Amino acid sequence: MTKRNEDPREEARGHLEKFGSEILENIKNTDPPRVKVPSRSTSNIVYDEEERYYTLADKKSTRTAANMRQVKKFAQTLCAADFCKDLITSGKTATLREMYYTSEGWPTGGFSSQDRSDRIVEDIESAFGVKREDLGLLPEEDGASIFGELVVEESGMEVKATEAGRAGYTIPPTMGDVEFVACGAERVLAVETMGMYHRLVQEEAWDDYNALVVALKGQPARATRRFLKRANEELGLPIYLFTDGDPFGFHIAMVVISGSAKLAYINHELAIPDAQFVGVTASDIEDYELPTDKLRDSDIKRLKQLLEDPRYKDEFWQKEIKKMLSLEKKAEQQAFSKYGLEYVVEDYLPKKLDLK
Amino acid sequence: MTKRNEDPREEARGHLEKFGSEILENIKNTDPPRVKVPSRSTSNIVYDEEERYYTLADKKSTRTAANMRQVKKFAQTLCAADFCKDLITSGKTATLREMYYTSEGWPTGGFSSQDRSDRIVEDIESAFGVKREDLGLLPEEDGASIFGELVVEESGMEVKATEAGRAGYTIPPTMGDVEFVACGAERVLAVETMGMYHRLVQEEAWDDYNALVVALKGQPARATRRFLKRANEELGLPIYLFTDGDPFGFHIAMVVISGSAKLAYINHELAIPDAQFVGVTASDIEDYELPTDKLRDSDIKRLKQLLEDPRYKDEFWQKEIKKMLSLEKKAEQQAFSKYGLEYVVEDYLPKKLDLK
Repeated sequence: MTKRNEDPREEARGHLEKFGSEILENIKNTDPPRVKVPSRSTSNIVYDEEERYYTLADKKSTRTAANMRQVKKFAQTLCAADFCKDLITSGKTATLREMYYTSEGWPTGGFSSQDRSDRIVEDIESAFGVKREDLGLLPEEDGASIFGELVVEESGMEVKATEAGRAGYTIPPTMGDVEFVACGAERVLAVETMGMYHRLVQEEAWDDYNALVVALKGQPARATRRFLKRANEELGLPIYLFTDGDPFGFHIAMVVISGSAKLAYINHELAIPDAQFVGVTASDIEDYELPTDKLRDSDIKRLKQLLEDPRYKDEFWQKEIKKMLSLEKKAEQQAFSKYGLEYVVEDYLPKKLDLK
Repeated sequence: MTKRNEDPREEARGHLEKFGSEILENIKNTDPPRVKVPSRSTSNIVYDEEERYYTLADKKSTRTAANMRQVKKFAQTLCAADFCKDLITSGKTATLREMYYTSEGWPTGGFSSQDRSDRIVEDIESAFGVKREDLGLLPEEDGASIFGELVVEESGMEVKATEAGRAGYTIPPTMGDVEFVACGAERVLAVETMGMYHRLVQEEAWDDYNALVVALKGQPARATRRFLKRANEELGLPIYLFTDGDPFGFHIAMVVISGSAKLAYINHELAIPDAQFVGVTASDIEDYELPTDKLRDSDIKRLKQLLEDPRYKDEFWQKEIKKMLSLEKKAEQQAFSKYGLEYVVEDYLPKKLDLK
């Protein structure tokens, strides 16, 4: 187990304080205060072939208090940074929604919509390369459920992921506050649906496979992606992704692997290029004669887009996507229950995970 | 704490076995096998003024193997009952989706769509007055998160809801398997959003209010409603519901209180007529000068429907709905952060809960 170097919230506070000091320095020198923010526009988002995830290129824009059109936004950025510094200092967190409402009491006045206050947060995240969670800002969504031989510590509680109930240990939105204490598992098996999660817990697959079983619950929350990244880096566990055999399932897996374009500014903290897809493929549909649904027009359109996407350019994906298009069929991960409830646990997954 | 009389899964098995015996008896007597199923059509759903929730009236239809148009469906009902009996006997559970796929291997052949297999399950539930969860069928959705002085037992694990992590103890879909071991709380405070849940946990409101804090996560899952019902009946705790001040928030609260029309056949296990709404009202919008959003056309339409709904016929609701229509505004539960993050915990809720 590799220990993390520094408390990420303290690191974030360091960035905010440095930001504040620079502005004071600017003012002392009668320089207009300013901040450089990487551009998050489509033209500045690139797929980094070496890192194997989406990242931002070098284009930056400067926000300055000397520009009348930017001065209010600049002041709001300072207020937001101050709000975050207070959160970190008091050990608290707030949702983006709460920050939006709190801003009604700021000297700058509030925002006209939450979109605008969210964008200020993204500015701060990308300017300093810190995650909003480490700034004390809490995503609304629940993290994944985990079952298996893992012990974590958070807020002074030690929690065993086999003793938090059958629904498992739930990853808190503030994954940065969680410390890994002990781990007896050798791999992580992350699955798309709660149905499959409960199947794996019930059949004790977490024990048989020596795995942490993680329920992604569809498109995974940021906290879940951060958990998987840290399990991969700090615990050294390989990550396996078991999703439905359809364009959405592929997308869920690929966002974990290579990050999304939208979060390009923070993918270095989230993307796991070595995570492995063990989801349902077009070949599985044929080999296992799975019950299927017909591809919809929107599925066909999406699959054709994936064929052109740099993240899907290797041979495996090209072959499977083309095969799915020719079959005109998709299949869900629960479709294996055609052969009995245990089949997916006893036959399909051990083969995919090279356990038999 | 009131103990439950019987294991609900054993009770469900009793119903299934009796059903099987009756059919064998029919066959011995060369009577056509049949089953009576209460009608779930709109005309048979009534609001029971005495019980204060939606329930089914007396109309029943008879499914019989002697009718060529019903014989396949009748046989599928038998197969589904057999599938459920096996689940109960083996102590397993399956999702509705898994049952749908498993049916491909039944002597009757599979269903043309999951809607049809789901309806068979509803037939069995309403014919015998048992919940699908007790038949071993697992809803897909996650239950709520709970934080507070509660100890439960499930699958031989004892779980303390203050020691399962900050995200709390998650109610499993099979709420029927959970036993209450100990409870130090005096009330349940159920809130609409995870954001408000984390605020209450962070400010230690669960301790100050002596409450179990429950995150409904929008429209609550069946397992959550069952938890609230059992906390009310078995633990004798009053239930308070804190939602947004908008038609959806009112609906979320009212479904907990009086049940939904759709689940009329099972509301006796879910509805909590004495649960109290402490959500944001139109009066609160005025009294607290809350940040608001303008009502949409769909909100206005919905509010007008609620005025005619028997569940909202008392003076409080009529007054608040009319006032909201005249203000043309709605407000979220997080809007109190206008006065600081702690305000909702230190001022608003203690007043609503009569704690100060």
